[in-house]
Amino acid sequence: MIPEVSRLAHASRPVVRRLLGPPSMPRQTAPDSSPARLSLISRHLAPVYPINTPYTVERLPSTIDTSLLPKAQTRAMSSQPPHPTLLIPGPIEFDDAVLQSMSHYSESHVGPAFVATFGETLSMLRKLFQTSDPASQPFVLSGSGTLGWDLVAANLVEAGEDVLVLGSGYFSDGFADCLKVYGGNVTELKAPPGSKPQLPEIEKALSEKRYKLLTVTHVDTSTGVLSELKNLAALVHRVSPETLIIVDGVCSVACEEIDFDGWKLDGVVTASQKAIGCPAGLSISMFSGRAMQAFQNRKTPPAAYFASMKNWTHIMQNYEAKKPSYFATPSPQLIHALHTALKQILARPLSERFALHKEASDRIKKAVADLGLKQVASNPDEQAHGMTAIYLPETVKQTDILPSLAKKNVVFAGGIHKEIATKYIRFGHMGVSVLDPKRGDIDRAIKALQDGLAECGYQKA
Amino acid sequence: MIPEVSRLAHASRPVVRRLLGPPSMPRQTAPDSSPARLSLISRHLAPVYPINTPYTVERLPSTIDTSLLPKAQTRAMSSQPPHPTLLIPGPIEFDDAVLQSMSHYSESHVGPAFVATFGETLSMLRKLFQTSDPASQPFVLSGSGTLGWDLVAANLVEAGEDVLVLGSGYFSDGFADCLKVYGGNVTELKAPPGSKPQLPEIEKALSEKRYKLLTVTHVDTSTGVLSELKNLAALVHRVSPETLIIVDGVCSVACEEIDFDGWKLDGVVTASQKAIGCPAGLSISMFSGRAMQAFQNRKTPPAAYFASMKNWTHIMQNYEAKKPSYFATPSPQLIHALHTALKQILARPLSERFALHKEASDRIKKAVADLGLKQVASNPDEQAHGMTAIYLPETVKQTDILPSLAKKNVVFAGGIHKEIATKYIRFGHMGVSVLDPKRGDIDRAIKALQDGLAECGYQKA
Repeated sequence: MIPEVSRLAHASRPVVRRLLGPPSMPRQTAPDSSPARLSLISRHLAPVYPINTPYTVERLPSTIDTSLLPKAQTRAMSSQPPHPTLLIPGPIEFDDAVLQSMSHYSESHVGPAFVATFGETLSMLRKLFQTSDPASQPFVLSGSGTLGWDLVAANLVEAGEDVLVLGSGYFSDGFADCLKVYGGNVTELKAPPGSKPQLPEIEKALSEKRYKLLTVTHVDTSTGVLSELKNLAALVHRVSPETLIIVDGVCSVACEEIDFDGWKLDGVVTASQKAIGCPAGLSISMFSGRAMQAFQNRKTPPAAYFASMKNWTHIMQNYEAKKPSYFATPSPQLIHALHTALKQILARPLSERFALHKEASDRIKKAVADLGLKQVASNPDEQAHGMTAIYLPETVKQTDILPSLAKKNVVFAGGIHKEIATKYIRFGHMGVSVLDPKRGDIDRAIKALQDGLAECGYQKA
Repeated sequence: MIPEVSRLAHASRPVVRRLLGPPSMPRQTAPDSSPARLSLISRHLAPVYPINTPYTVERLPSTIDTSLLPKAQTRAMSSQPPHPTLLIPGPIEFDDAVLQSMSHYSESHVGPAFVATFGETLSMLRKLFQTSDPASQPFVLSGSGTLGWDLVAANLVEAGEDVLVLGSGYFSDGFADCLKVYGGNVTELKAPPGSKPQLPEIEKALSEKRYKLLTVTHVDTSTGVLSELKNLAALVHRVSPETLIIVDGVCSVACEEIDFDGWKLDGVVTASQKAIGCPAGLSISMFSGRAMQAFQNRKTPPAAYFASMKNWTHIMQNYEAKKPSYFATPSPQLIHALHTALKQILARPLSERFALHKEASDRIKKAVADLGLKQVASNPDEQAHGMTAIYLPETVKQTDILPSLAKKNVVFAGGIHKEIATKYIRFGHMGVSVLDPKRGDIDRAIKALQDGLAECGYQKA
């Protein structure tokens, strides 16, 4: 399990490209992330339809008859119409009040009512990330979670600077690709699927070169591998104190403990649609005073425009001070939904929230073990609490089990780590599905998995 | 009115910076767009509050008592709660059905139902942009409209290539700044506030240098100046046929005629929250086959990651072919709202929509003239049809008239063009406020303007 220090050699890419046909995108460009990401469609389940097999997007019908989708309601007492329960590792099921906030009437993005809402949202993020240091700086931008990578790569790294990426799966590979686009000199410490680089290897790498920045994917959504942060951060502060510690928290913020100040993290980037429980469309991040200072000490201008901290920092500071300010128009509706979601989160102690996610995760992981199945994340200490990636029995295909679950109104996701994509499925358990026992989502999903596997002919050996 | 060919010399910036206090952002960075944009807060009205004067964000109260905001309903028969009518040049008032689509229950971003919705949305955009050329490529990304500038600058221009920006106001300056961040060698043909570069000047500029790309802001939201596109495009094709023609259509798409194929445009970038009538949060664009070919012929990789056409082109093509595909998670709720908005738009002939916007605009402009007031856009042929920028009488302050309008439940915006910001107000008239006569928004706003000016002591000379 010794991770290989590599510069992102992607041996399998020619195969991917062959299956996709001749590339029409520029050949000279690097890093060559598009075909790989493209082919690695999440295959989050096409209910009652054939599922794509890995590295093909060509086999799906070009027209989909959505009237065939299941319509049965899965729970009562909701303002939402009947729909299958979405238990993929994001987007997750959303609370009624959060969805209703999405329909907020139109407001000026610089009017006092919206400015107050945005300002409160930014202040609440400080509590979610557990930072009371006034030098910490939150950002909320319209964009996918991926935009957070650009925010880090275009502002905290200058061309030619060394970056160490801890490789725990598909998403750390993506972060590495992004850093390279903006000129980062990336070393990726890669672990085999289902594990992560270990502290001794990381210490060795840090002692060999002076890295401007280290990135760690807290939970790699491709594998469900959890990277412990407290000891990692302590190691970095001891061995390479000038290295900024940047966490990809897309699949961890609001379901895994993150003590931003206590662990002296320098940046956590995340998205709205996972454990925070707000529809997709927002890149949400927090940076330390030290990270902001590193940005201010740049010798070259930020390498992006929309993702430039130069353009956004004062805007965020003004919104938080309830002063109108403009760089680009934010989405009042999404900010309202995030505001509602954060109010719900902060109405209870965060420790309770993390404990409830752990409790549900333990129950799911026990059920998986009771079924005689293994997780992709093999080490119990490295298993996420908001999702579970489950190896299928050899006799059961993804293309059988996912539609079987769909018929039971439960939507799981297929695999996405390219070395093992067909061999496992992903079960997301974050937010209201875990916190609202009246929904019964988790028990129903476990039952559906048990029944579905039985229908596929699987019996525990 | 001969525009000055300049390289974006911003003489007023030291003043801006002084008013904002010492810069905490890096000094070496260029272009220095942040302080300018920051200071130019839209001042879209703080109902019943003092409005910021230009170049200050410091005078607003740090705490806003939103209970003081007007609560009266402005129209009946809506599912929206009472709220002031938003008549700024975006975001606009939204239709009930569009807002309801924002609350759509959670769906997998790669599930067949959402893939079908996204695919239909992309196909409908072809109709909105009036392109039937299959080589044309639509993009819909999570982000502000500003992200469209990055899409152009990071993909269609390589470092050191020459770009001609037609400068008609604040937003063309912004596009120029963005192009420079990605290495474009920008020449901005600047016109005085309220006008635009004229064809002879443009012809002269095009004949002096070979430009990779020309940008034109169809309607500059800062001034309401409309740049005619048909003759401009014909000129470019005649004088400099290899130059790509890129249109900033943020304040024009869906309210001004744009014949993408007929005029042989190469790119139009826009946002969701203006005349398209969908809440903010989406960057929407269309590029010609020729533009996509120029992208494919790049010698260097795209200069951004989230805004990279390399990462998104196949994804958009797959969604449109109803095949699931993944690069970064789109926002299913925003895409549903855009789908609803586009269905509404395309249910009637586009020509009728443009005519209704022109009719309302004519009525507003006549009312403005009848009041003895002048528009910022002085030439009637250069006046936008979705907004009107109105010079205030010398005796009336922005800080008096905007709150007076707010008390009448009408929200206008302040000025934003930095040379004249305090001297004018902006009235947005796009989408349902123009198309749904039952709302009575336009007549009520005209009446509010008349009454408000009278209350401020103004009488026509």
